[in-house]
Amino acid sequence: MSTTNTGFLEDFAAMSGFGATPGGGVDRQAGTPADHATRKWFGDWLARHGFAESLDEAGNQFGTLDLVPGAPYVLLGSHLDSQPLAGRFDGAYGVLAAAHAAARVAAEARAGELEPVCNLAVVNWFNEEGSRFTPSMMGSSVFTGKLPLRDALATTDPAGVTVAQALAAGHRRPDASAPVLADVARYAEIHIEQGRSLEEGGTQVGIVDRTWAASKYRVTVDGAQSHTGSTRMEDRRDALYGAALVISAARDLAAEFEPGLLHTSVSEMHVLPNSPVTIARQVVMNLDLRSPDEDVLARAMDLLGKWIGAAEERSRTDIALELTHRWGLVAYQPEGVALGRASAERLGFRHTEIMTVAGHDSTNLKDVVPTVMLFVPSVDGISHNEAEYTRDDDALRGVELLTEVARRLVRGDLAGLEPERPGR
Amino acid sequence: MSTTNTGFLEDFAAMSGFGATPGGGVDRQAGTPADHATRKWFGDWLARHGFAESLDEAGNQFGTLDLVPGAPYVLLGSHLDSQPLAGRFDGAYGVLAAAHAAARVAAEARAGELEPVCNLAVVNWFNEEGSRFTPSMMGSSVFTGKLPLRDALATTDPAGVTVAQALAAGHRRPDASAPVLADVARYAEIHIEQGRSLEEGGTQVGIVDRTWAASKYRVTVDGAQSHTGSTRMEDRRDALYGAALVISAARDLAAEFEPGLLHTSVSEMHVLPNSPVTIARQVVMNLDLRSPDEDVLARAMDLLGKWIGAAEERSRTDIALELTHRWGLVAYQPEGVALGRASAERLGFRHTEIMTVAGHDSTNLKDVVPTVMLFVPSVDGISHNEAEYTRDDDALRGVELLTEVARRLVRGDLAGLEPERPGR
Repeated sequence: MSTTNTGFLEDFAAMSGFGATPGGGVDRQAGTPADHATRKWFGDWLARHGFAESLDEAGNQFGTLDLVPGAPYVLLGSHLDSQPLAGRFDGAYGVLAAAHAAARVAAEARAGELEPVCNLAVVNWFNEEGSRFTPSMMGSSVFTGKLPLRDALATTDPAGVTVAQALAAGHRRPDASAPVLADVARYAEIHIEQGRSLEEGGTQVGIVDRTWAASKYRVTVDGAQSHTGSTRMEDRRDALYGAALVISAARDLAAEFEPGLLHTSVSEMHVLPNSPVTIARQVVMNLDLRSPDEDVLARAMDLLGKWIGAAEERSRTDIALELTHRWGLVAYQPEGVALGRASAERLGFRHTEIMTVAGHDSTNLKDVVPTVMLFVPSVDGISHNEAEYTRDDDALRGVELLTEVARRLVRGDLAGLEPERPGR
Repeated sequence: MSTTNTGFLEDFAAMSGFGATPGGGVDRQAGTPADHATRKWFGDWLARHGFAESLDEAGNQFGTLDLVPGAPYVLLGSHLDSQPLAGRFDGAYGVLAAAHAAARVAAEARAGELEPVCNLAVVNWFNEEGSRFTPSMMGSSVFTGKLPLRDALATTDPAGVTVAQALAAGHRRPDASAPVLADVARYAEIHIEQGRSLEEGGTQVGIVDRTWAASKYRVTVDGAQSHTGSTRMEDRRDALYGAALVISAARDLAAEFEPGLLHTSVSEMHVLPNSPVTIARQVVMNLDLRSPDEDVLARAMDLLGKWIGAAEERSRTDIALELTHRWGLVAYQPEGVALGRASAERLGFRHTEIMTVAGHDSTNLKDVVPTVMLFVPSVDGISHNEAEYTRDDDALRGVELLTEVARRLVRGDLAGLEPERPGR
């Protein structure tokens, strides 16, 4: 049941064949055939390595290893779903690293090399990416009580398929035995950085101490249909022009602050009627603002509000913003950061504390369970792109680090920190 | 077989029920069930009024009335297809006006009230709008030899359905007896203005003397996918930001010229991957420039080329323009304009010569056949919008005018003008 470094790279190559794209990436959006094929492969891997596989109602896929009857779990995991035309590392690296780390620690415990106080479980969170079904981090949001299960299951993709329908096409039905939040004592996750700080700093691993704050909006621009040719320019109420002004304003907004203080983007857009001869009556798009400083987000939104007023006037449209998802600048538990740092030091890895700009399933978990979040470097910081890459030695160092963290969590090194549960 | 004004309004109301929308408009894009239902209704109308119905391979629907065995046709028509969520008048008004005018003139000829030298035919051109299948004016482009039939039939809509497949769902198959270009001696069309010049001038009818020049482009913006959150602003190659800069530049371009000298628009956009968490790698959109002065179009494109260079630099994207459709500033035959004017004068209608900004099927026909193009007022110039409206008295005056034009054409008043055929 023990695994080796060589085994990890071989497994990772095999897993990367599911949804593989010609450009060297993967395309396996949540609940698609490629995602289900990867989940099936992972379920088989778990079974081959002695894990009991189970699925919860939200589509989260677990593998459990019982070491101490009745004890809570140390849960390790990430997500196997991807963006369209994405890289092979985002999420998938962390799930496989979790599985290898858990298998090794369980083998050590069973060999009497460590004294476990917890059981071990790994998880593949459903739909972390949110590209097909919004919002992102869906499975871990349901698991942590932040999103009602029925809302998640009723969410539709652009073709009208619900999450419930997409999940029903998978390789197994939900199990009553799947872990629930109350069963989890500790959580750990490892992920590629998706930025270039570690690489630029010559650092081998990152211990995440905080997450950037993020505010996500739905922007609706309402204009009026008219003929693209014959309508006088001054008579137009062009929703696509209004949208273009918002996109430019969002970009200009980032330039109003010190570099690195504000990231803004618009990346998804739906135009009605989207005809070559009719001016758009409506555009619906997303707007994503992130900052390591919540005050910057507030100041940015004040400023953007004024600019949007000007865009409305200029384009003769009505522009409405609706907050759809946000998370604050919440620190990871300092004790967990200290445990991650001690683990890296024991292994002799060059390490640093680091903030995460991207959201992760651990963003949800850390709010309710003591959590350790780890990063490995991304070459050139490229992510959500087929060219996303993490070097083999970095990937293997990450597995070693997550294994050491899991060892310490399983033997109770984070004792005294009680999980915070919603409503308690 | 004669028709009355009351009959026209009743027929128009009945026809407007096909594809009717809650906002008082119609939605019957080319080859959809709503378009086919309207075509079937029109075919039945033709049969009830003594026309022989026929269809050509490009989906153009004809009704012929033989008065002079072997003589060529005076062809009257427009189109029944619409933009999505469009008005009831655009195209459909002209087809029904043509049918009523032809029926009346034929009845007069058969009653010995005029001496015909031509036969009469009406036409519903397939896919004038071009919203579902690009380019616009498809049926009349094939009929006049400007677009190969096989290219038209192979054109796909966004769902991958071809024109050939969409036409096969219609109420009848093509007929070998359908008129071809060589059978047509004269063409006349009446349409709503889709602008507000007639209304502002207190004029009742317009005789179109020229068409604005138009240049249409496909714009492709190539960037690179990356994470909307974690990618540093300076590392981004955001195709949607590049597209927004082009949309703004196109609008600013119009402001560089005297009001009314240049109309610009972008109205259709396809974003890849169109995900909320991934910066767009590619945007493909249209760009439509129109002017009553071909030199203005040339100067505008020079200027836009420079601005696009700046947009590429600012957004770190590559932006390519490809010309997809153009028509020049071609005059309608002065003899046809004179005949239209004389007809309006005989009826005592306040009239003016006017340019058309929008393209029409007559834009194609006038290049190869002596053509008379007529306008009736549009309230507030609203078009491609459910609120598009032409008052009953204006609509009826238009039918009267088209009838008078048809009378004169059928009795040979435009003698001496020979049709110009491509390749002759």
